[in-house]
Amino acid sequence: MNAATNSELPVGIFDSGVGGLTVLHAIREAMPGEHLVYLGDTARLPYGTKSPLSIERYATQAAAKLRERGIKLLVVACNTASAVALDALREQLAPMPVVGVVEPGAAAAVQGRTGGSHLVLATEATVRLGAYRSAILSLDPDAEVTEHACELLVALAEEGWVDGAIARGIVRRYLDESHAASPDTIILGCTHFPLLADTIREVAGDQVRIVDSAGTTAAVVRATMDAAGTRRASDDPGTLRLLATDGARRFARVGGRFLGQDLRHEDVELVDL
Amino acid sequence: MNAATNSELPVGIFDSGVGGLTVLHAIREAMPGEHLVYLGDTARLPYGTKSPLSIERYATQAAAKLRERGIKLLVVACNTASAVALDALREQLAPMPVVGVVEPGAAAAVQGRTGGSHLVLATEATVRLGAYRSAILSLDPDAEVTEHACELLVALAEEGWVDGAIARGIVRRYLDESHAASPDTIILGCTHFPLLADTIREVAGDQVRIVDSAGTTAAVVRATMDAAGTRRASDDPGTLRLLATDGARRFARVGGRFLGQDLRHEDVELVDL
Repeated sequence: MNAATNSELPVGIFDSGVGGLTVLHAIREAMPGEHLVYLGDTARLPYGTKSPLSIERYATQAAAKLRERGIKLLVVACNTASAVALDALREQLAPMPVVGVVEPGAAAAVQGRTGGSHLVLATEATVRLGAYRSAILSLDPDAEVTEHACELLVALAEEGWVDGAIARGIVRRYLDESHAASPDTIILGCTHFPLLADTIREVAGDQVRIVDSAGTTAAVVRATMDAAGTRRASDDPGTLRLLATDGARRFARVGGRFLGQDLRHEDVELVDL
Repeated sequence: MNAATNSELPVGIFDSGVGGLTVLHAIREAMPGEHLVYLGDTARLPYGTKSPLSIERYATQAAAKLRERGIKLLVVACNTASAVALDALREQLAPMPVVGVVEPGAAAAVQGRTGGSHLVLATEATVRLGAYRSAILSLDPDAEVTEHACELLVALAEEGWVDGAIARGIVRRYLDESHAASPDTIILGCTHFPLLADTIREVAGDQVRIVDSAGTTAAVVRATMDAAGTRRASDDPGTLRLLATDGARRFARVGGRFLGQDLRHEDVELVDL
């Protein structure tokens, strides 16, 4: 494939469901000219409570589907799949570049400083694998890292109950249970959690820096394509295709909250993995 | 297969995850001599937000696996699968009897009275299909039925946060949003919800009757086997086998809450569907 053809291909973005649309949104803001194709594996979500073996199998199936459609780069816009399956996906798709969200999130948290204290809020699977801990400590061996599983925040974001007393109560309880006394940063280690960022800031206080991977991941995607010479040349707005493995209506209804725009179920194409 | 062999076979119980263990518990209490085999499709839970097509496919795969192991009756201990796939499962397994949880739950709510007002708390898929509404109205055409989707209660039960201010706040909000002014009964239309029964009673008030399917389903299972002459003759305690499609550790940890006894992950056998 020559570079001219390649640059016209879409960037593939994969998540277990709709949460990764927060990453898609950041990529579209940063590079409005790029074509994008998003695959949400809604038939098998959530990944966060599944075993590593299953998560890796699901992720490689999704990646194969996107490669079959033709993409020039894969973004794994799911913290759990990034934590579990990034190496397997890179091996599967080589030489196509694969960008996860954990490393960009860790880089955004550390930001060149040393000795920071970080609280990572994530799913059970991401916490069990210690993916953020490893990524942060590889950037700053003096950092202090606490990881805490917050499954209810996923359901809360999907239900759209992102502010008010219930959301504050749940966030408060998770922060208390994490036993992380006044961290410098709170890392939103699940793509569902940016919807709860205001509530988390309200509960944690203004002195805490809230970090999510979306913006940093978009920057890494741009740098990777610049280096490979695969950025799309045209300034026309890029196209957006949405694929899901189940439930187009629910994808449109819940996904609209994550993308920050109304979606119709006709906009979502169902695919089998 | 002759009746003598048949009666020694286990009762098969199927759910999308661990919630059906509340039904298994009621069956074991009612018929301690029966052998039981439970299959939780933890690799693909939750069913409640999936499409009917996917739910039916998953349920028939699970039923095939249990039939392969040898069972004498199948209990669909999942409201969503009962609502979506009962007819397909009966066709698939005939002449083996298949008992769902929706009809027994509706019968427990109506209890021979007429004109009652019922609030059904369930998953999105169960509500969308109106399964409880149909089942209740077929028993009492004068009944008033409100169905309300309560996805967060599933996550709440799995997290074990079944009492306290957060649980009460979430239940209060769902009851308010249901717009069901003082129903006579609240039907727990998801096998996760019995864990929240005390909190629901606390919020709804003592005058409301809280109904779940577990006990009535066990009674239907007993009556069905009595009629077919397939009850186990021996008084020895029956054996219990637990199968799951993913995450034995999580199944044991969360499942213990539903079964009301400690489970070890070695007690859970992983199977592929």
